[in-house]
Amino acid sequence: MTEHSLWRFSRALQRAVNERQTDQLESVLDDNVDWAIYGPIDMFAFFGPRRGKRAAIDVIRQISETVQVHRYERESIMLGEDNAASLMRYTITPLKSGHRISVRVAHFVQFSGGRLTSLRALVDTFDLVEQVLGRQIHLPQIA
Amino acid sequence: MTEHSLWRFSRALQRAVNERQTDQLESVLDDNVDWAIYGPIDMFAFFGPRRGKRAAIDVIRQISETVQVHRYERESIMLGEDNAASLMRYTITPLKSGHRISVRVAHFVQFSGGRLTSLRALVDTFDLVEQVLGRQIHLPQIA
Repeated sequence: MTEHSLWRFSRALQRAVNERQTDQLESVLDDNVDWAIYGPIDMFAFFGPRRGKRAAIDVIRQISETVQVHRYERESIMLGEDNAASLMRYTITPLKSGHRISVRVAHFVQFSGGRLTSLRALVDTFDLVEQVLGRQIHLPQIA
Repeated sequence: MTEHSLWRFSRALQRAVNERQTDQLESVLDDNVDWAIYGPIDMFAFFGPRRGKRAAIDVIRQISETVQVHRYERESIMLGEDNAASLMRYTITPLKSGHRISVRVAHFVQFSGGRLTSLRALVDTFDLVEQVLGRQIHLPQIA
């Protein structure tokens, strides 16, 4: 049984973010990858939809210049033949503030021929924003 | 082939939220269900971790008293033998404001004997908060 494409992609992503080496990532992204990490683009320009390998690698480069990833826990995972979904909790430090924060991210990925063709990532963005700001945003109680 | 437990749970959830009938939900939730929808509890008290059928049904009752769900699109889905993950986009109206909004939610669910034993839901919470407030929150540009 061959290794699931998710693991190869995970290692390539980790190497790209923490060591700023994108060689493995190059070989695991489809040229035409359909990519979106949903979040407030005013705060982090690397959020939002992208199309193609170059654009996705640019996103990862921006992330690597913005945060350091210390560790991650997989809280839930599903592996299909050519796809995967996972719920992760990352412990990261935004380099500007130097304060360690923790954020949940859900990924839905699809592969074709071992290469990533689609990525959708959902982030608990309000929690992220408050932690990055280092203060609470007052909210009215709705329910 | 029997129907996947997700579909039974989805119908029960829909009936509970939109028609406020929790009978089907009662029969599909495990007595000891481990439940969490991550989000700002200051704004919506039904966010956060819960344990057990009563507590989960209370959450759904609060949601049904707070929003109306118009429709949902499944943007991504994975079905396992006893689990599932999905990325959904809901179009809802918070009853207090009456303005229709749209929000992405990722679910990770596990079943045992056809009953839901675990649910984790991640919401694009900053997007949700801004839409509920009806205005943008100013954010500093970090990257």
